[in-house]
Amino acid sequence: MIKAAVVGGSGYTGGELARILSRHPGISLEAMTSRQNAGIPISEAMPFLKGFTDLSFIERLPDDGDFDVVFLATPHTASMRIAPALLERGIRVVDLSGDYRLKDPRTYEKWYGHQHTDLSNLPRAVYGLPELFREDIVDADLVANPGCYPTCTILSLAPLLRYGLVDGKVIVDAKSGTSGAGQEPTRSTHHPSCAGSITPYKVGAHRHSPEIKATLDRITGKDIDVIFTPHLLPIVRGMLTTSYASIKDDVTRGDVAAAYMSAYGEERFVRVTSVPAIPATVGSNFCDVGFELVGSTVVAMAALDNLVKGAAGQAVQNANIMFHMDEATGLDFPGLGV
Amino acid sequence: MIKAAVVGGSGYTGGELARILSRHPGISLEAMTSRQNAGIPISEAMPFLKGFTDLSFIERLPDDGDFDVVFLATPHTASMRIAPALLERGIRVVDLSGDYRLKDPRTYEKWYGHQHTDLSNLPRAVYGLPELFREDIVDADLVANPGCYPTCTILSLAPLLRYGLVDGKVIVDAKSGTSGAGQEPTRSTHHPSCAGSITPYKVGAHRHSPEIKATLDRITGKDIDVIFTPHLLPIVRGMLTTSYASIKDDVTRGDVAAAYMSAYGEERFVRVTSVPAIPATVGSNFCDVGFELVGSTVVAMAALDNLVKGAAGQAVQNANIMFHMDEATGLDFPGLGV
Amino acid sequence: MIKAAVVGGSGYTGGELARILSRHPGISLEAMTSRQNAGIPISEAMPFLKGFTDLSFIERLPDDGDFDVVFLATPHTASMRIAPALLERGIRVVDLSGDYRLKDPRTYEKWYGHQHTDLSNLPRAVYGLPELFREDIVDADLVANPGCYPTCTILSLAPLLRYGLVDGKVIVDAKSGTSGAGQEPTRSTHHPSCAGSITPYKVGAHRHSPEIKATLDRITGKDIDVIFTPHLLPIVRGMLTTSYASIKDDVTRGDVAAAYMSAYGEERFVRVTSVPAIPATVGSNFCDVGFELVGSTVVAMAALDNLVKGAAGQAVQNANIMFHMDEATGLDFPGLGV
Amino acid sequence: MIKAAVVGGSGYTGGELARILSRHPGISLEAMTSRQNAGIPISEAMPFLKGFTDLSFIERLPDDGDFDVVFLATPHTASMRIAPALLERGIRVVDLSGDYRLKDPRTYEKWYGHQHTDLSNLPRAVYGLPELFREDIVDADLVANPGCYPTCTILSLAPLLRYGLVDGKVIVDAKSGTSGAGQEPTRSTHHPSCAGSITPYKVGAHRHSPEIKATLDRITGKDIDVIFTPHLLPIVRGMLTTSYASIKDDVTRGDVAAAYMSAYGEERFVRVTSVPAIPATVGSNFCDVGFELVGSTVVAMAALDNLVKGAAGQAVQNANIMFHMDEATGLDFPGLGV
Repeated sequence: MIKAAVVGGSGYTGGELARILSRHPGISLEAMTSRQNAGIPISEAMPFLKGFTDLSFIERLPDDGDFDVVFLATPHTASMRIAPALLERGIRVVDLSGDYRLKDPRTYEKWYGHQHTDLSNLPRAVYGLPELFREDIVDADLVANPGCYPTCTILSLAPLLRYGLVDGKVIVDAKSGTSGAGQEPTRSTHHPSCAGSITPYKVGAHRHSPEIKATLDRITGKDIDVIFTPHLLPIVRGMLTTSYASIKDDVTRGDVAAAYMSAYGEERFVRVTSVPAIPATVGSNFCDVGFELVGSTVVAMAALDNLVKGAAGQAVQNANIMFHMDEATGLDFPGLGV
Repeated sequence: MIKAAVVGGSGYTGGELARILSRHPGISLEAMTSRQNAGIPISEAMPFLKGFTDLSFIERLPDDGDFDVVFLATPHTASMRIAPALLERGIRVVDLSGDYRLKDPRTYEKWYGHQHTDLSNLPRAVYGLPELFREDIVDADLVANPGCYPTCTILSLAPLLRYGLVDGKVIVDAKSGTSGAGQEPTRSTHHPSCAGSITPYKVGAHRHSPEIKATLDRITGKDIDVIFTPHLLPIVRGMLTTSYASIKDDVTRGDVAAAYMSAYGEERFVRVTSVPAIPATVGSNFCDVGFELVGSTVVAMAALDNLVKGAAGQAVQNANIMFHMDEATGLDFPGLGV
Repeated sequence: MIKAAVVGGSGYTGGELARILSRHPGISLEAMTSRQNAGIPISEAMPFLKGFTDLSFIERLPDDGDFDVVFLATPHTASMRIAPALLERGIRVVDLSGDYRLKDPRTYEKWYGHQHTDLSNLPRAVYGLPELFREDIVDADLVANPGCYPTCTILSLAPLLRYGLVDGKVIVDAKSGTSGAGQEPTRSTHHPSCAGSITPYKVGAHRHSPEIKATLDRITGKDIDVIFTPHLLPIVRGMLTTSYASIKDDVTRGDVAAAYMSAYGEERFVRVTSVPAIPATVGSNFCDVGFELVGSTVVAMAALDNLVKGAAGQAVQNANIMFHMDEATGLDFPGLGV
Repeated sequence: MIKAAVVGGSGYTGGELARILSRHPGISLEAMTSRQNAGIPISEAMPFLKGFTDLSFIERLPDDGDFDVVFLATPHTASMRIAPALLERGIRVVDLSGDYRLKDPRTYEKWYGHQHTDLSNLPRAVYGLPELFREDIVDADLVANPGCYPTCTILSLAPLLRYGLVDGKVIVDAKSGTSGAGQEPTRSTHHPSCAGSITPYKVGAHRHSPEIKATLDRITGKDIDVIFTPHLLPIVRGMLTTSYASIKDDVTRGDVAAAYMSAYGEERFVRVTSVPAIPATVGSNFCDVGFELVGSTVVAMAALDNLVKGAAGQAVQNANIMFHMDEATGLDFPGLGV
């Protein structure tokens, strides 16, 4: 049994990690930290877990804690403060923040507004999108778990780019449920503000923008122009991305369909469909992708649960790979559907 | 033209007052205060008012401001600090807080946790529910605008109590949209927390409970036992109350219907219907009431827009009465319906 | 491995049964019928099941089908047409319709508007609320799976009634998500009609009313007056009931708390909490119950997922009991929480 | 007083026309037809209008009805059956269907699947987008009221195209509330299907696509490539369009801002803002537009109430122009804001 801990577990991602791990046959959750909830039973702060864990939140991990893997559900900058010591002790790390996702520390500094403080570990960090970089993850000590928007966007665009079917800029119109904004109340997630609206925010200025670009650049070896517009959607769980790219001359509908099938036909957690629907993915680790051709433009759509495939589920999927378990262990359940 | 000012105008109630007064042919909004937004154009903080007012928020009303009426959209305790000086200057006051609603200062202290600090004006305050106490309002200097829950509940129960059709305790199961909680983000109005839920809160402990009881006692001259359970409903605007009381022997369905028609047949803003629907009232000053008899229990239902008939609209209705205008002036528009 | 079939599987309850059974280690779903979807892969009609079942809907069960148990997700009247032949073949039946819930055929006829056509099997039908009637279920051939409202209401009231803490009438103010209305589009579940509203319907006239009453009568041996008001709530999954009863003199808060703990302290799927929250139960088989005392009135609250503990999950819980498996088999997962 | 009638008034658009006209000082609603509701008081079918109209729905307009203008809230094909006779009688027509929006009957036939049956009146039909084609509307007998998506999209893009700031294709990612789908219940507007989702539909195949293209072509005199993806958004009222185009070299942020101000600085119903928000427009005739520059891509955003500026409100605005009234007559009220 792999022994796991979660640092910064009092948010939605922490709760989701605990929800998944509470039923995982190969990984046991041994400890979960939270400064604000230290000493409180997890199932008291998170009543949906009542009956599934007897743990209480602790202030911080013990220095001699016997863990095989630690999930960092901490904000950026906190992760790169915490990870080095864990790695030094031989504990493998899955970081759910943005700290290790961008390989270029200048890009990090530009978008996150902080210097990167763990340049020694940054090079060994592996971008944990299993469907694209599975081989790298197997032996990784440090996995940068992708952002929710990048996971959804990249999975829908990768086949088009990898097989060279499109060129020119890529436009990503993304819509996320409010749980993606975290559990701290803010003006933008105040129910009267957001429930009757769909609000574009940080247009062209969201931190997931360089993350998407870096990965698309890596896939293609080119410099891809990515325009990324996130919108706050008045649902709680779930995300949809609608992306637009120009297909090259002679590329047919069949070519596009073949690219998706070739990319995902064998994948456990990416399903190719016609029009993806969020409810089919809610509560599950699936990302459903589909496309439509409109003239010479391909409209690539993808849906997922931002807390599962967009965060905690993918983190567990990465851990499964890191510890040579079946990738679907503990994640092999369907979405709610309705 | 009646000159009006709003104190504490940066919240939802202030915005709604400005929305209504911007179109009112007999009352002009001359000033609106807000500590946090002082100096900012109202239409910048409240973009729906762009094109309807050139005013900017001011820090506080000028001591020599020439106003006929001031609407206090201030929190409780603030209202009773501000009202006395206005009254002394001969300015009439409509207070939207709870400060002047309860006649007994001990009841106030018990439920609001503060001593009442304006005992000299408390006796002259008139409870501003026009359909019940219109005569008192006409000449009032100080009107205590009722709470949203009490308005909805009392309007649905008053005919039953006034005509002596029911006895025993009254159970009020109330559901309010989230705008009733105000515009400050909180855990309970955080979209991910409330959007998929209906949450009972302050069960038996809500401050609108003694306000409902005091009014029902006043109508009947008896000591009515009121059980009041508010729920936070995942809609923005609107409220429904479902109330239960035991009808006396021999009371028929026809008697109940007659009581409602007798009470409200001539009213402009209370409509008797079968099953009230929130959308018919949204954006309007209407309260729709209906009932059903189940055995010896009457189920009394009412719906209204908590920001209009439950707050700003009723405040303007009161001002219309105070200044001898037609009661519907500036309020004579239908709800959105859908 | 227990072999199961579902009749009438194309609705939400059928989908939920398939979702649960797809992961059940002791029961395998062998066939699912649907007249409208016959021939279509289940995972095509229900994309959330893609990757979890290779079955296609069939028109009807084969006469010689080798099934241990059949779940009837059929409408009332259909169930009592189908059940007798199955029972005759020695196949055990869990019926999710209302056909076998009411022991008195005259009550059935009055509320369902049809004569009961299977009087020979009606007496052997067991009301499948495990927390109250577990012993009866063990050896039952025919289990009447309770309605969603009755499950939620009865679980919250049973301890009060069983231990004689309350008397007089019981008022049930119930709120259900729209999935409870089934998957056929109707005026009442049309998004523009219901999304901004909470709508009382069938006040005092809902078929779950006599079902609640019959069970409360059975628990107490008395004739309980039940007033039941359902409301359509603008969420998809989940239900809350707020019930009101008068406690007897001398009954204390401690007595009430003790009654709940005594009733549910050992139960796997009923959790006693302070204020139940729907999100803690969504996607799970839990019913969370809590209470508040307001004067001499107890406010009993309960929340559950209407498709799981209110339908398909409880049906599987019943099947687990019928086949002597651990009651939580295949149901031992937490709710989504958010 | 201008005398108006509405044909096909039982839907949301009809209700909205009645809501607006009930308060219009210059146009009186004299008759409203509905086959399904004939004989029923309007205020019974539409309870939000109780107290605002004494009319009942009639089966059809009398042949000798004395009307100055008729609003056709009929489906396409019905409008072109009804309009000719009205026009012949000298009654002016505002058609809210798609029948007279496309000048080229072959385009109409291709997208609507029917031959155009009123080729004689088609040439005189004026596309009723006042902010662009006000002069044409003044003397028009037949106004084709624009679709909701085209209104929102075109208003946000017109300044960019008119002033030649962009070139290449235009991508429109549009999100509409469910009231846009009409009041007939369907699978896609069934609450459990749509409330937790945002669903792309008719990607590249929506009838508003050629309408947008035709108008953009007309503005520019070029052949614009428009990619239009509508999404069903889980709110009732309101629409947001997010559109993408490439700006030409040397075009600055200031140029774009100047284009918007130049186009709309004097307009009553188009407000230039930074990020448009649906709630600011709900219930009102405003369209709020804004933009962001991301590299060489301009992201043009617009929000409006699909039933008002997207349908009934704009129809009344057109009628005001046609009858030489102030354009804002009866429409001069703010949105709800929250």
